[in-house]
Amino acid sequence: MPEKEGVTMEAEHTISVLVKNRPRVLARVSGLFARRGFNIDSLAVSTTENEAISRMTVASATDEATLKQICKQVSKLHDVVAVIDHSAHEVIERELCLCKVGVDRSQRAEVIQLCEIFRGDVVDIGNGSMTIQLIGDKSKVDAFVRLMSDYSIKELVRSGKIVLERGAQEE
Amino acid sequence: MPEKEGVTMEAEHTISVLVKNRPRVLARVSGLFARRGFNIDSLAVSTTENEAISRMTVASATDEATLKQICKQVSKLHDVVAVIDHSAHEVIERELCLCKVGVDRSQRAEVIQLCEIFRGDVVDIGNGSMTIQLIGDKSKVDAFVRLMSDYSIKELVRSGKIVLERGAQEE
Repeated sequence: MPEKEGVTMEAEHTISVLVKNRPRVLARVSGLFARRGFNIDSLAVSTTENEAISRMTVASATDEATLKQICKQVSKLHDVVAVIDHSAHEVIERELCLCKVGVDRSQRAEVIQLCEIFRGDVVDIGNGSMTIQLIGDKSKVDAFVRLMSDYSIKELVRSGKIVLERGAQEE
Repeated sequence: MPEKEGVTMEAEHTISVLVKNRPRVLARVSGLFARRGFNIDSLAVSTTENEAISRMTVASATDEATLKQICKQVSKLHDVVAVIDHSAHEVIERELCLCKVGVDRSQRAEVIQLCEIFRGDVVDIGNGSMTIQLIGDKSKVDAFVRLMSDYSIKELVRSGKIVLERGAQEE
């Protein structure tokens, strides 16, 4: 994304940070983000196929210049193995959401129908609530959450976005 | 889970932390975990239905006493709204995984078959690779990753576990 001189354009960016799986590394990375005033929209951290390495996926609305700077600084931190900026590449992006909506018996059928349209799955039904599991990119999950807010959302948790670059680019 | 006197039993625990959506709060919480030597297995952070509130899901193998202590300390931090320890409750637990495996054409059919058994979805195919999306609890994702390690895993990302308590308990 080229930028006009003097114009900073904020957009949603995603970076992956591969780190050694050690106690202090998460605090070190998030501490750097905080000191730089870099606002994190979502963060997902877990192990990879190599148990010694964890992968952090950070999503943030920021401008290109700030992003480049922060990537450079993060890559210099102790126990950071690699930093991947996904801005310029085609990626597979997914997020997982669990949403518990308060519904009485008369509303169940319509919520199930909306759930089917979004290819969500009903994973739990209580007397006055229903829990739906949904997978999609951020905008799909956003749209579903907006729709569910017509009912009473009792509890909601999102994993934050995870991404992998498409396979064709690797060959 | 009652504990015998003098015996500390480590087990996988999950806590949810509801925080105000402000820049420094993630660094504050992860800094506390690091200072207490509390090792985080996975962490998922994203907004909730209320844009001012984010939800962090922390998974860690620890003993009950350390867990109780850390929950108490986290709940006292600035911008922390609530801490939920899920140890004693029945929860819906899910994790999302994207796994890119190196497969040649002759291996595609068998990987697709394994993928179907785990109810995964093939979300991308390149000339020499295939990317699979899988949703399940931690043990299911662990089993799938072990299986895929028979092939060459090129890249793998997991969201970390997210949980909601089952609806019946709320009524």
